[in-house]
Amino acid sequence: MAHSPKGAPAAVGEIYAPIQSRLDRVEAKLIELANVKFPFLSEMLTHVYGSTGKRARPAITLLAASFHPHDQYKSEVMATAVELLHIATLIHDDTVDDSAIRRGRATISSMFGKDIAVLVGDYVFASSATFVCDTEHVGVIRRFSETIMELSSGELRERVSAHDPSQTLDDYYQRIYNKTASLFRTAGETGATLSGAPSEQVAALSEYSRELGMAFQIVDDILDFQGDEQEIGKPVGSDLASGIMTLPAFIAVETHPNENPIIAYLEDPNGDAALLNRSVEMVRSPEVIAEAYSEASRRCDLARATLDSLPNTPSRDSLEMLLDYVVRRRS
Amino acid sequence: MAHSPKGAPAAVGEIYAPIQSRLDRVEAKLIELANVKFPFLSEMLTHVYGSTGKRARPAITLLAASFHPHDQYKSEVMATAVELLHIATLIHDDTVDDSAIRRGRATISSMFGKDIAVLVGDYVFASSATFVCDTEHVGVIRRFSETIMELSSGELRERVSAHDPSQTLDDYYQRIYNKTASLFRTAGETGATLSGAPSEQVAALSEYSRELGMAFQIVDDILDFQGDEQEIGKPVGSDLASGIMTLPAFIAVETHPNENPIIAYLEDPNGDAALLNRSVEMVRSPEVIAEAYSEASRRCDLARATLDSLPNTPSRDSLEMLLDYVVRRRS
Repeated sequence: MAHSPKGAPAAVGEIYAPIQSRLDRVEAKLIELANVKFPFLSEMLTHVYGSTGKRARPAITLLAASFHPHDQYKSEVMATAVELLHIATLIHDDTVDDSAIRRGRATISSMFGKDIAVLVGDYVFASSATFVCDTEHVGVIRRFSETIMELSSGELRERVSAHDPSQTLDDYYQRIYNKTASLFRTAGETGATLSGAPSEQVAALSEYSRELGMAFQIVDDILDFQGDEQEIGKPVGSDLASGIMTLPAFIAVETHPNENPIIAYLEDPNGDAALLNRSVEMVRSPEVIAEAYSEASRRCDLARATLDSLPNTPSRDSLEMLLDYVVRRRS
Repeated sequence: MAHSPKGAPAAVGEIYAPIQSRLDRVEAKLIELANVKFPFLSEMLTHVYGSTGKRARPAITLLAASFHPHDQYKSEVMATAVELLHIATLIHDDTVDDSAIRRGRATISSMFGKDIAVLVGDYVFASSATFVCDTEHVGVIRRFSETIMELSSGELRERVSAHDPSQTLDDYYQRIYNKTASLFRTAGETGATLSGAPSEQVAALSEYSRELGMAFQIVDDILDFQGDEQEIGKPVGSDLASGIMTLPAFIAVETHPNENPIIAYLEDPNGDAALLNRSVEMVRSPEVIAEAYSEASRRCDLARATLDSLPNTPSRDSLEMLLDYVVRRRS
């Protein structure tokens, strides 16, 4: 705890204030979407759509859209599609990772088996794609489809590079862009596009959301090494345990180049537990964690700089507070 | 063999003649698409895109588009997207069904494991959706996304209703529309739309392809009970063995309403092998198979009737020959 930035961040409710009523409509739309004629599917959709995530991605879409008067239906449809896509990826990720719990609820995979979870995930992917068609904007629809390609190739890259000692920091940044920042970028970029913002503002909000997404994933990867199992809901160092190198691990390797237990652990096909424990302890050191946080903060600074091109409104303040929130959150 | 319609159907090469050069460009595009920068993914895509299926769906798109001069790039893009979507569903179906072989090749799931197969399937789904954006036609893109929803809910319905003795013939028709005829319909309907055909011709080609798709699946379901394991590449009666009721099984239940082994087998959670053998023998009877074929032929007649509204061209002849081919094929 001592090594993360100090001071309490703004609460999510305060950050979302300028778009809360619109976000509530997105939430209501999700609940409504679960009401399909096929009872078994309806039950599963109610389960997954009703889970109370932070809804960060649709909030970004709505905030990014709020600098120009526009057809609000279209940005709400987009925000809903973005959250649906996020939910679909969670269903498949949990299936692939054999996760039993997500956001405090049992996963579809653990409740109904992997096979059903694959098909439900496909259905939710398709729902998101159908929804985005309601924007009637081919450029936005294309960006959305490209995002699905980036998401799935990011997850594939992560699996394929696991336990590969030749993976580089550049590979890591490419991977987290694909698996996380791509969708954040799309959330902001499409919100701006659909609001009719001029192209330099669309570019600014696209960059803002991409860098926010990078910071978000970096902090996730730091939190994986912090706290205890109860606090973060999974074993400490679970990424490294699976052979996945994240920023804190790369920093630990760089600062301890000789006989590093992390490299030895990656190279060990049997995953020796003692090596893993030594590796995790090395990553948890104050210096390593502080350096990883400073990269997250650097990404947030890049994001913050893009906001200068936007009018000074409550939504801009919210986008700024969101940067702070992402770095300071504990879960 | 004695119970299927007589005479040799036209060969696929003859049927595809009016659009063969265009279908070759679609084939080349698929090979090109496998050439991505991520070597592991490229290897897998080369494996799946290079498999020589019949390419029936893209052929339908190109034939349906050929009644009006139009931007041929768009219908070829559409044909490619339709085949990509078909390939994506095969990857996930084989994953869910634990199939080891498809079109004579090892499945992705058997080569690299289920988890990788889920993600590769997602990537191919997303590729198909990205491709369809090149048509720049929002109505076509929407129809395509809806098709993905129909496909996944069809597969889900099939799984959920397995071993459920209350499943009805109507459920079956709904299921095969979703899992098969929906994509056939989309193949023909979008080809016609992109060619700029008048709305009554679009409607005719939509109905033609839907009924062709229904006949195609009915024949698939008949073939599952015919021939031997070597000829059809899987155990005879494999659908029923999994508790899935298809048209021939429904006909057998209807014609033998008392103490039917099929109902007993469905109700038996352990799937007694002797009951299954008796069930399969009952379905394989000449009367049952003939009645199932007559339903497939009735669907083809419905499809054939829609062709009257089209100009008499070699493409129309091909669409007519395709009906004949679908019913008479042996695999």
